[in-house]
Amino acid sequence: MTDVTQVLADEFGSTAVVDAKRLRERATSYWDSSPTEAKCLVRPESTEQLSQALRICHQHGQTVVTQGGLTGIVQGAASTPGDVIVSLERMTEIESVDAVDGVATVQAGAILQSVQEQMASQGFLFPVDFGARGSCTIGGAVATNAGGINVLRYGMMRNVVLGLEAVLADGTVISSMNQMLKNNTGYDLKQLFIGSEGTLGIVTRVVVRLFPLPVSRDTAMFACESFEAVARQLGSLKANLAGTLSAFEVMWGSYFNAVTGPGAHASPFEHDYPFYVIAEAEGANPDVDAERFQRLLEQGMESGDIVDAILPKSESERRALWNIREEFDVALPAYLYDVSLPIRHMETYVARLKKRLADWRSDAVFEVFGHIADGNLHIFVKPYADGEHHAASDEIVYGCLEGLDGSISAEHGIGIDKKSWLHLSRDDDELELMRGLKRLLDPGNLLNPGKIID
Amino acid sequence: MTDVTQVLADEFGSTAVVDAKRLRERATSYWDSSPTEAKCLVRPESTEQLSQALRICHQHGQTVVTQGGLTGIVQGAASTPGDVIVSLERMTEIESVDAVDGVATVQAGAILQSVQEQMASQGFLFPVDFGARGSCTIGGAVATNAGGINVLRYGMMRNVVLGLEAVLADGTVISSMNQMLKNNTGYDLKQLFIGSEGTLGIVTRVVVRLFPLPVSRDTAMFACESFEAVARQLGSLKANLAGTLSAFEVMWGSYFNAVTGPGAHASPFEHDYPFYVIAEAEGANPDVDAERFQRLLEQGMESGDIVDAILPKSESERRALWNIREEFDVALPAYLYDVSLPIRHMETYVARLKKRLADWRSDAVFEVFGHIADGNLHIFVKPYADGEHHAASDEIVYGCLEGLDGSISAEHGIGIDKKSWLHLSRDDDELELMRGLKRLLDPGNLLNPGKIID
Repeated sequence: MTDVTQVLADEFGSTAVVDAKRLRERATSYWDSSPTEAKCLVRPESTEQLSQALRICHQHGQTVVTQGGLTGIVQGAASTPGDVIVSLERMTEIESVDAVDGVATVQAGAILQSVQEQMASQGFLFPVDFGARGSCTIGGAVATNAGGINVLRYGMMRNVVLGLEAVLADGTVISSMNQMLKNNTGYDLKQLFIGSEGTLGIVTRVVVRLFPLPVSRDTAMFACESFEAVARQLGSLKANLAGTLSAFEVMWGSYFNAVTGPGAHASPFEHDYPFYVIAEAEGANPDVDAERFQRLLEQGMESGDIVDAILPKSESERRALWNIREEFDVALPAYLYDVSLPIRHMETYVARLKKRLADWRSDAVFEVFGHIADGNLHIFVKPYADGEHHAASDEIVYGCLEGLDGSISAEHGIGIDKKSWLHLSRDDDELELMRGLKRLLDPGNLLNPGKIID
Repeated sequence: MTDVTQVLADEFGSTAVVDAKRLRERATSYWDSSPTEAKCLVRPESTEQLSQALRICHQHGQTVVTQGGLTGIVQGAASTPGDVIVSLERMTEIESVDAVDGVATVQAGAILQSVQEQMASQGFLFPVDFGARGSCTIGGAVATNAGGINVLRYGMMRNVVLGLEAVLADGTVISSMNQMLKNNTGYDLKQLFIGSEGTLGIVTRVVVRLFPLPVSRDTAMFACESFEAVARQLGSLKANLAGTLSAFEVMWGSYFNAVTGPGAHASPFEHDYPFYVIAEAEGANPDVDAERFQRLLEQGMESGDIVDAILPKSESERRALWNIREEFDVALPAYLYDVSLPIRHMETYVARLKKRLADWRSDAVFEVFGHIADGNLHIFVKPYADGEHHAASDEIVYGCLEGLDGSISAEHGIGIDKKSWLHLSRDDDELELMRGLKRLLDPGNLLNPGKIID
């Protein structure tokens, strides 16, 4: 059989095709500095070029792994020495921004933060936001249906994508570049590619919905003595902020204590509490909005639900509060989890987890935080021992979801990492239908093989 | 071959199975009073019963048409004498409402207005709303991805559905009853059934997202001299109402004049204008919200964009304004269209339409209104002559979309009515993928055959 790398290099040249040797200069991922292993990496500069590359791979029965910013944590973009990697790092253009309609067309290789900044410079908010914003790509965010901190108000990536273009395993280009909020012309094909982790097609261009840039922003970090109080405050802020509540991040004391203290972040509080919340609202009327936000916090304090609160007086103070939530390197290494379950079951879940982890090892430690309005908890479990305890830890974290209507992946996806646990969240008929979709769109199992399902 | 009606009647009894004769007492649809034609109508009382009924139909190679409230206007639920009809009219229960999580589980046969009212009585807003609310079902709204007047703020039905259960053609039950905003455990199967008009599966139960019931509501009808002024006002209200703008309905003068006057609605204005808008905002702070809303209208008047405005002083005055938009029987009969296109192309489109309709017939009349923030225009074309001019009218209305990034169906779906025009909005590769999905989920072409695609 002809060497597929040679065919690709002959077709596209050495700028577009990085060979195996040069590829080893690239790290595997943000989390793993070992060299990238693959036959080669193809960097198309257009959808047509990608289509042609995939046609060549298809003819050679060649597996293809698509990589974005490599910030994912479920090995959803992991390659093997036998794969060809596709990277859209040369397709980073913002092709158009329409101010009247509030839509932009973006190439999939664009970095999230760059898109956010370019939209902001034109008066628009691109609302999907999360810690990896500086490295991750729009295409990766679509492929993983990324979530983050503003889902409560703006939804996940799925809710922001109006249209997209994707290339199938055989090179067919599916162009569904809808620009409107309403378009019911048959099956909504774009949904197939959002959140399918590169297993059904490679997203090349995306039409996204923009929102007005907020004028006011009010932030607080407050403390509560009980989870019920936290949940009541969420309900109160949702009801009284009329859709302007944009973040409600909860940190259990275990997490907060792990990331604050000597050598870590400074706690803004004098005392320890069981729960800490960062709430943020973004509105259009600075004076009125600030007054309303503060009045709601005062009401929370009067009711006893809020026992302490900090209102940042500057952007740097605000950033310092957010860093407690977003910069958690000091708490690592740990097994990092991302589960979702209804708010009403969260206390039960955390109590179960505590008991089962203690039963497992006397030195087990866990830290909890997350976007509870989205049903999303992140959990760190330690001691981390180079994977040694990984399966046991997985079994406990996922096993504790039983009967609580939860899922093993809120926003991180399945990749390779969670594949063996997917049956806990999906029954046999769902899995069979997923396999059917995979067979329909990629009968040769060439696109990101071994991810999500086998 | 055994008579499938007899098998179903033997299995489920005469309460569950309405025979062909009794069925003729039912009207075909809201729009067509001729008798319903089919072998029989099955009214399951549970998902299990529906699954069993579909298994029986599958064994008999029997086609099945699912009917909801029969308010659709693209013949998406039309039956033939050889079909079995499924109606979920006995599955109307609201199974649960969870106040902490803001989610409800609803059976697909429940009437939309009933769900809205029951949620409101518990302090929650079910946000999907449109004229047919008193007759249409939740299942029908899911199957057609219904839109309506609040899409600007809350999205279409797709955005409100967190999870669902559907029965496939062979009786397999796909249960994806997710309750969280975040759940990335593999392919999001529920998306297959939303908006697929009963051709891929029959939706039986739905988990929906609820929103806080608004406390304030501010409404205005205003007039503009130009479409640019209308579009600027939309931009201003979106930017300054911080996500509380819930409706922005535009009526061209042609529509407004057709539904106001002697024997019709009373116009609240003394003069005629080229454009009329109903804007509505729903918030949580009555005093502040009303003041802000009025200040924005005043700014609009000062800028010259708004040339006249009415603020209703009571709910009945408000209702009277909305009736101008929603009760348009006096303008019927007409060919009724529902297209979508970017706002920036709307003036071009309407001008094209005017010219081509005039070229077609000197007595051609058209009236335009719609949800422009969603890119959605509705159009009435007359003279209506029992279908005589239908194809010519279709060709003009859809043909004028060429090159304007539009779609032939914003929210009404495709059904039978728009099937022959679908190629104007979807290319061959998209249509082939749609057919592939149909073959995968319904290889025998038994579910709602002949709708959307062949």
